[in-house]
Amino acid sequence: MLQPVANTEPPLLAALARRPVSRVPVWFMRQAGRSLPEYRTLKGVDSILTVLQDPSLAAEITLQPVTRYGVDAAILYSDIVAPLAYAGLEIDIVAGVGPTLEPPLRSRRDLGRLARFHVEALGPMAETVRLVTQSSPVPLIGFAGGPFTVASYLIEGRPSRDYVHTKRLMLSDPELFRDILARLTDIAIATITTQVRSGARAVQIFDSWVGALGTRAFVTHITPHLRRLAAAIDALGVPSIYFSVGTAHLLEQATSLGFSALGVDWRVDLSSLARRHGHHLAIQGNLDPATVLAPPDALIDEVRHVVASSRRAPGYIFNLGHGVLPESDPDVLSRIVEYVHEEGTALRSLCGDEQ
Amino acid sequence: MLQPVANTEPPLLAALARRPVSRVPVWFMRQAGRSLPEYRTLKGVDSILTVLQDPSLAAEITLQPVTRYGVDAAILYSDIVAPLAYAGLEIDIVAGVGPTLEPPLRSRRDLGRLARFHVEALGPMAETVRLVTQSSPVPLIGFAGGPFTVASYLIEGRPSRDYVHTKRLMLSDPELFRDILARLTDIAIATITTQVRSGARAVQIFDSWVGALGTRAFVTHITPHLRRLAAAIDALGVPSIYFSVGTAHLLEQATSLGFSALGVDWRVDLSSLARRHGHHLAIQGNLDPATVLAPPDALIDEVRHVVASSRRAPGYIFNLGHGVLPESDPDVLSRIVEYVHEEGTALRSLCGDEQ
Repeated sequence: MLQPVANTEPPLLAALARRPVSRVPVWFMRQAGRSLPEYRTLKGVDSILTVLQDPSLAAEITLQPVTRYGVDAAILYSDIVAPLAYAGLEIDIVAGVGPTLEPPLRSRRDLGRLARFHVEALGPMAETVRLVTQSSPVPLIGFAGGPFTVASYLIEGRPSRDYVHTKRLMLSDPELFRDILARLTDIAIATITTQVRSGARAVQIFDSWVGALGTRAFVTHITPHLRRLAAAIDALGVPSIYFSVGTAHLLEQATSLGFSALGVDWRVDLSSLARRHGHHLAIQGNLDPATVLAPPDALIDEVRHVVASSRRAPGYIFNLGHGVLPESDPDVLSRIVEYVHEEGTALRSLCGDEQ
Repeated sequence: MLQPVANTEPPLLAALARRPVSRVPVWFMRQAGRSLPEYRTLKGVDSILTVLQDPSLAAEITLQPVTRYGVDAAILYSDIVAPLAYAGLEIDIVAGVGPTLEPPLRSRRDLGRLARFHVEALGPMAETVRLVTQSSPVPLIGFAGGPFTVASYLIEGRPSRDYVHTKRLMLSDPELFRDILARLTDIAIATITTQVRSGARAVQIFDSWVGALGTRAFVTHITPHLRRLAAAIDALGVPSIYFSVGTAHLLEQATSLGFSALGVDWRVDLSSLARRHGHHLAIQGNLDPATVLAPPDALIDEVRHVVASSRRAPGYIFNLGHGVLPESDPDVLSRIVEYVHEEGTALRSLCGDEQ
C-alpha cells in the first residue's frame, strides 16, 4: 500500500532536500516571459534591462506564471547579465540576438570594467525579490549565471557557437581567465546573497554554455570557481541547483561540486543519472522544450517517459531541459503541470514501491 | 623492442581497418578552404556552389592542403547540401550564415521537391573526384551529410540552434519525417556511390547536428536510416567514418550502427571510448579546433593528451573535433601534422608496449 505523504513542506524544497513530497514539483525555465500573452501586454516594447529597473513590474512578471500554471516555484524575472548591467557595464540585451558587450572584455585592462560592479546596484533586484516573496504562494528561486557562461558573453561580446575568443583567452592567458572567472564568481555570490537575504528560498546557477568545454578544460579552469560558488550558497542555508546544457560528458564532475541538485537537458539519460547520483543530490529536468510543440499524445508520452526515468532519484523536480520556447502554447504548459502533479506523482510513488 | 612497421598501406586505410600503421594518420575537417590563403586567392568571391560546377578548380582546392600540410587524406571540397543544389533545389550557401532553403521543406507536398535529385546531376562532383584521385599522393575521402543534419537545414530553412521546426515535424508527423530522412539517405547513398566509383577510397558521414536529439529520439527516428547508410557503404567495399558533434550521450548507439570508424568531438572522453569500443571500430578525433589558436606550448600539450588518450584503440586517426576555424594559422596546422607523425607515432607505439 502507498503511504499518503503528510508532508506540508513546499514540494520544491522537499525534493531539493530529497525528502518525501506531497506531489512531484514542477516549474519551467523561462516560465515568465516571452511565451505568455499577459507578459507581452505588460512588458510592451521596453528592453528587459529597462523593465528590471521597475521592481513592481518585474515582480508582477515573475508571478504571472505562478498564477497561470500553478507551478511549484517562482523564478525571478531577470537575466544572468543583469547584475553587471545594473552596475553600469556596457551590456545590452538585443531582441533576437541576446546579451552583447561592446567592446568585449579581452585584456587585463578590461578586468577593471568588472570592478564597477557594486552590490548596492542590486537594489531594484532586492526589492523585486521582496515584493514577490510577500505575495507568492510558492518559494522563489533566485539565480545567477555560471562564471564560464557569463564570461563567454563578455569575452565574445555576443552569443557564440564556437566560443573561440573565450577558449583562446583561457588557453593563452590562463591567469587572466582565472581572474575574470573569480571576479564573476564573486559577483554571482553577491547577487545570490542579496536574493536570499531578500527572501529567495533556493538558487539556480545557469551555466548553459559550459558544455562547450571538454572534461579536461572543465576540471582545470572551471570547477574550482563552481566549488566556491556551491559552498557560498550552502553557507547561506538555501539549496542550490546547477543547470547546464549539453553536458552529458561532464556529469561525473558536475555531480560532485557541492550543489544540492543537478539540472540537465534532454541529452542526459535521466534514468542512469538518477541511479548513479540520485542518492547524493536531487535531479531536475529534462523534457525537450520542442516537445511542448508536439501533438498531445506525443507530448504526454514524453512527459511520462521523463517522470518514469526519474524514479531512482529520491529528490526529483520536473522541468524542461532548457527554457520555454517563445512559440509554446501556455495551455499546453498548464496541461503538463496538471499531468505531472497527478499522474506523475502517482507514477513515481508506484515505481518507488517496485524498487 | 618496438617492431618497425613495414606496412606500406596508406596509414589512413590501415587505421580504418585497425591494422598496423607506418605512422599515425592525420587530416583535418575543413582542411581545404577558408583558412588557406591559396584557397582565398583561387576561389575569389564566387559562391562555393559556383566553384563546385568547375571540377578542375574544385580538385585544385581539394589538393591544396595535401600539398601544404602533408596530411594523410584528401577530403573532397564540397558541401553536404551540394548534391541537392546540383539537382536544382532552391539551396543557397550564404557567407557567414550557412545553407538556406527558401521556402523550407515542411509538408508532404514539399517531399516532391526532393524528387528533383537525380544522380546525373553529380557529374561535376564525379569529375572532381577523378581529377583528385589521378594526382593525389594520399587517399581521397568522399562524404555525404547525415540524414538528420541535412533534413535540419531543409526543414529549418537555415542553420538553427534549437531545431524547433525539425523536432516539431518529427513528433507531429513521424511518417513524413521518416519519408524525408529515407529520401535523404537514398541521396547520400547515391552521392557516395558516385564518389567511390570515381575513386574515393573511404567515406565520411557528417552528421554534425544529430546531438540535438536525446537518445530516445535518436534510436526511434534516426538509427534505422544510419544503419542502412552504413550497410550501403560497406557494400561498396570502402571504410566509413560516422562523425557528429556533441554526442557524448549517443556513443553506445553510434558505435553499433555498422560504420568502420567513429569521429568524435572534444567533449568525448577519447580514452574511455577507445577502451570500450576500440576493439570493434576505429576512432577519429578530437582536438578542440580552438586549441589551434592557443600558444605553441598549450597546443602541443593538448595534442599529446589527445594522442595518448587514443592508445587503447588499435585503429586511430588524428583529427580536430570539428572543422578548422577560419582564424587558424596554416603554419600551426603544419606543426600539428609533423608532431602527430613523429612524436604521436612514437607515443602510441610506446603506450602500446605498456598494455
